[in-house]
Amino acid sequence: MRLAELSARSGVPTATIKYYLREGLLPAGRRVSATQAAYDDVHLRRLRLVRAMIQVGRVPVATVREVLAAVDDDSLDHHMRLGAAVWALPHELGGTDVTADDDGAEVTEAARGAVDALLDRLDWPFARLAGADSPAYRTLVGALVRLAQLGYPWDIDHLTPYGRLAERLAVADLDMVQGYGPADEQVEAAIAVTVLYEPVLLSLRRLADGEESYRRFGEQEHAPGDDAPEADG
Amino acid sequence: MRLAELSARSGVPTATIKYYLREGLLPAGRRVSATQAAYDDVHLRRLRLVRAMIQVGRVPVATVREVLAAVDDDSLDHHMRLGAAVWALPHELGGTDVTADDDGAEVTEAARGAVDALLDRLDWPFARLAGADSPAYRTLVGALVRLAQLGYPWDIDHLTPYGRLAERLAVADLDMVQGYGPADEQVEAAIAVTVLYEPVLLSLRRLADGEESYRRFGEQEHAPGDDAPEADG
Repeated sequence: MRLAELSARSGVPTATIKYYLREGLLPAGRRVSATQAAYDDVHLRRLRLVRAMIQVGRVPVATVREVLAAVDDDSLDHHMRLGAAVWALPHELGGTDVTADDDGAEVTEAARGAVDALLDRLDWPFARLAGADSPAYRTLVGALVRLAQLGYPWDIDHLTPYGRLAERLAVADLDMVQGYGPADEQVEAAIAVTVLYEPVLLSLRRLADGEESYRRFGEQEHAPGDDAPEADG
Repeated sequence: MRLAELSARSGVPTATIKYYLREGLLPAGRRVSATQAAYDDVHLRRLRLVRAMIQVGRVPVATVREVLAAVDDDSLDHHMRLGAAVWALPHELGGTDVTADDDGAEVTEAARGAVDALLDRLDWPFARLAGADSPAYRTLVGALVRLAQLGYPWDIDHLTPYGRLAERLAVADLDMVQGYGPADEQVEAAIAVTVLYEPVLLSLRRLADGEESYRRFGEQEHAPGDDAPEADG
């Protein structure tokens, strides 16, 4: 397909596609004349992925390039390509800029110890070995430091159920990723699922929190369909 | 306690505390002289909460004021105060700025239908009744629109397990909130737990994804303790 069709099918303006081509985020098309190139489904898929990372994940262009290098690295096996690509994705949510004073250093040490103990308890050998090399590990340590500094100290017994639920989320994530046929597509899908399902997960959690709060505290006074209009009414 | 002690115990600079006082995010202290006021544990707790919202949740000051108004509204029962406070919290993660063209409107309609069907299937009457009045509902619709537009169409069968896991997260969340004694503290804790556990949850999910990917694809070639140093070595 020509550039115009690639733009129409992806919903990405041609100027943006040209920018991605210049930045090396999209492989060049096959030359068909001095001024025209042809693109195929590989370009379309890659374009969607780049857009997901930049628009939803707000991943910087330089990082997108790193992630894609991992996706395209044939020297890595499937697990390593999946891992390297997701690994390079930044965490949008804060929690890592730990204060550098003595108190901060002590709290950080304690948080690191808690994360290691949690990973042992969960029996996650891969995460345990990677340790602070993993951006997700560092985000978790930073989040615990924040909790402590803000007066909401963590408790490993409270964290464990979140870890167990994360295990089940990962099963759902990987099942979805494996639904995408060939290995190349799976790696791209893993990145998209990681980025695009974060808002899905967080909004479902907030809705479920409301539901659970309603169940525990609100049932008597606010029965649905009683003091509020029927959903389908 | 005096302002200096409030600052020392909370880790918030006195200039910032004065700013929060001026903005009405913190109730005034009890006057003890023409130039001095006394603060207590209620101020300390409120200060921590304001900081959690502003620093971690990046909640705008005007929104913090709205959230706190709900926290302090004695006319609401416990569920409604919890709900109103968490309700007012913005969602940091994107997904809502849906394109306004015809295609976008159609995709949005379809996404709304999918969310309603999902809520019915999950049997979440409170969320179903609130519908698009709920910011979390709108975020979820926006996230599904994004998925479709980026070429990763949703499937209600894929979304259902995330909903079921969100239910279990909500049980863990509310158990933690109820661990905070009096009702006032519970409402404050609910906000803090909502905001501060988002990075915890997302980083645990990424670690678990790596673990699950390792289990499915990497076991043979990358046994831990085999080609990598022992975690405790």
